[in-house]
Amino acid sequence: MTDLATRVYNHKWKIDPIVRSLIDTDFYKLLMAQSVFLNKPDTRVTFSLINRSSHIPLAKLIDEGELRAQLDHIRSLSLSRGESTWLRGNTFYGKRAMFRSDFMEWFENLRLPPYHLERIGDQYELTFEGDWPSVMLWEIPALAVLMELRTRAVLHDMGKFELQVLYARAMTKLWEKVEQLRDIDGLLLADFGTRRRHSFLWQDWCVQAMMEGLGDKFVGTSNCLIAMRREVEAIGTNAHELPMVYSALANSDAELADAPYQVLRDWQEEHDGNLLIILPDTYGTDGFLSNAPDWLSEWTGIRIDSGDPATGAEKAIQWWNEHGQDPRNKRIIFSDGLDVDKIRELHQQFHGRARISFGWGTLLTNDFRNLVPNDALTPFSLVCKAISADGRPTVKLSDNPNKALGPDAEIDRYRRVFNVGQQEAMEIIV
Amino acid sequence: MTDLATRVYNHKWKIDPIVRSLIDTDFYKLLMAQSVFLNKPDTRVTFSLINRSSHIPLAKLIDEGELRAQLDHIRSLSLSRGESTWLRGNTFYGKRAMFRSDFMEWFENLRLPPYHLERIGDQYELTFEGDWPSVMLWEIPALAVLMELRTRAVLHDMGKFELQVLYARAMTKLWEKVEQLRDIDGLLLADFGTRRRHSFLWQDWCVQAMMEGLGDKFVGTSNCLIAMRREVEAIGTNAHELPMVYSALANSDAELADAPYQVLRDWQEEHDGNLLIILPDTYGTDGFLSNAPDWLSEWTGIRIDSGDPATGAEKAIQWWNEHGQDPRNKRIIFSDGLDVDKIRELHQQFHGRARISFGWGTLLTNDFRNLVPNDALTPFSLVCKAISADGRPTVKLSDNPNKALGPDAEIDRYRRVFNVGQQEAMEIIV
Repeated sequence: MTDLATRVYNHKWKIDPIVRSLIDTDFYKLLMAQSVFLNKPDTRVTFSLINRSSHIPLAKLIDEGELRAQLDHIRSLSLSRGESTWLRGNTFYGKRAMFRSDFMEWFENLRLPPYHLERIGDQYELTFEGDWPSVMLWEIPALAVLMELRTRAVLHDMGKFELQVLYARAMTKLWEKVEQLRDIDGLLLADFGTRRRHSFLWQDWCVQAMMEGLGDKFVGTSNCLIAMRREVEAIGTNAHELPMVYSALANSDAELADAPYQVLRDWQEEHDGNLLIILPDTYGTDGFLSNAPDWLSEWTGIRIDSGDPATGAEKAIQWWNEHGQDPRNKRIIFSDGLDVDKIRELHQQFHGRARISFGWGTLLTNDFRNLVPNDALTPFSLVCKAISADGRPTVKLSDNPNKALGPDAEIDRYRRVFNVGQQEAMEIIV
Repeated sequence: MTDLATRVYNHKWKIDPIVRSLIDTDFYKLLMAQSVFLNKPDTRVTFSLINRSSHIPLAKLIDEGELRAQLDHIRSLSLSRGESTWLRGNTFYGKRAMFRSDFMEWFENLRLPPYHLERIGDQYELTFEGDWPSVMLWEIPALAVLMELRTRAVLHDMGKFELQVLYARAMTKLWEKVEQLRDIDGLLLADFGTRRRHSFLWQDWCVQAMMEGLGDKFVGTSNCLIAMRREVEAIGTNAHELPMVYSALANSDAELADAPYQVLRDWQEEHDGNLLIILPDTYGTDGFLSNAPDWLSEWTGIRIDSGDPATGAEKAIQWWNEHGQDPRNKRIIFSDGLDVDKIRELHQQFHGRARISFGWGTLLTNDFRNLVPNDALTPFSLVCKAISADGRPTVKLSDNPNKALGPDAEIDRYRRVFNVGQQEAMEIIV
């Protein structure tokens, strides 16, 4: 029996909305939004979409009208009562009331600010301007919308059974990964795949499959909506946008050199325990660690997000040793370019030497490689970054020069201020 | 929204019935039932389940109570009005009113006769006795029930996502076969997989996948219910049970030697065109062809169902040539132990030399090999055969001695009467 009301209701939708909730976003965006809300609420920022895979002609694949309809839908969203209750009442990292009442009131009243969209050749220029706490919450939904519209474009002409088999193959592929991961003793792994997911429903499926397939080895998801619905941990700490914006606001080279540490001073005002995770690579890990204040070595751990991950982890272990810290009590989170083989390899190398965990992203929630003709669903490198703050350009260097962002002159200045030497260029897979 | 009525209704079922329609059976059973209804309506037969794969302990896997409940449910079925309308009104093999009114009236009033079920060690003895036209219609539902209860037993302890991935893998596997078959020019292929299917829903999925994936290369299904619902051709002609029972009824060696031909004399009273398909192997193809009356060479084609299929087809081609018939106008249907490689190989060897088609059975609708631990879903060889007629044992020899059925003394007599020489024993895969 068909439920007539459901059928009629479903056909009333003008679009099939991709993002249906303001908490269909990464947990760390909310943590950072609160931090920014407290420390830099009036900073004006511009975020911009950047397609690092310029061979993917997004504007040819995705209809501008459909993209606008999806973005407009996101602007109509507000925090629901249940979502607010969950954010206010849930325990995050063992702590109740992680989000302050003043922040929650602000968030409950938030509507995402306007966007600027323009087609330039085969790419879209998509930017968001406004106060930092509001604009920053565009990042994840904007990426998710573009990724899923691209998915829909590729799938558009496929038959019903062809589609079913496509998902059958993707499920099989993911499950084979789960079966391999299940055999790794002591593995701890979270889903970090919101921003470059194939689709919302696919990410949700992946999380549920890992819950059943990995049991305690699966520690949670960065996606708040899925964490709430599936009753798993919401996972995440902080990202490059904090040091990038703080640095752009610096009024001198000395202030610039201190900016990444100022971020962490502000951060530890609010947080402790597993939220004290250093992200050292914004302007090069080597310089960051060698100039770091002593108190930073007491933080809980480090996240390795660019460059060769084993090298980064070895540097962290050496740095802790030099500061009289026992690395075996420290956490190392790997979150860049992971897939099963890399996870196994890093786990073998570092398990027992430190507390290891993995934030598995694109190749968890968007590994449709080789599943359609011309490999048209291969994941690609799309980011949405703060490009300016109070009118000044931001810069990111990272441990991989291919990931550097910002005007050339500023990149040169930052390389000088942060003492960045020779870096190994690595291909950006995702 | 959940449809409350549907949900409550679904939970009222005492069992999940496997066979829900009297036309969830092979089309040729109905053609044969009509023939028997006209020619031998009062013959008393016994059909018996025979598990040729004795290493599969059916009685350990399948609960006797569940089996009885399924068989009892089948006994409660009668032809529905829509099913009757379809059988009366549909065009089969280009012919309207294939089923006579007197047969349809009989079928509309049919309830399947009682069964006898007993556990003997780890196997079930399951037999059906009564008038031939009624009892013969037990064959397919009995097999389908046992196959699907075995499936359910193996799947019983699997988790939700494990199950979903199992079906994802099976779908992927089937679709890869479809993709390979799609590339074979001039292929014609039908589903013959009802009797040993994984489950009804899976067979239904396979048929729909082939409709989308193979287009005109997929010519239909032997399953009447699926043919009706999916609006494809119902496919089939006749089977060994006709010569087996006719032979058992013979009163002398001379009558016995003629019995297989008498079957075909009766058959061509009713049918023509594509339904005039010889099944030559019941008592050995060599003897059958060399003793065949001339008029038989004018029949439309032949079905190769045991022994080495290429050898059987070469024999048929040679026989047609010897009788002044052009094999290129004749049809050869392969229906034994097929999978993609064998289909491709036979197609390459015979395409253009005769009209070739394939009745693909077990490895279409039940290829779950290597998809669960211990290969516990590997298909096995279960049959349900006429073992006696009017109190006399039946015999089948076929072109593979491993498929021979009947008492030893009778097998020896049949081998003598039908001049069966040396036969090559072949492993029965399915």
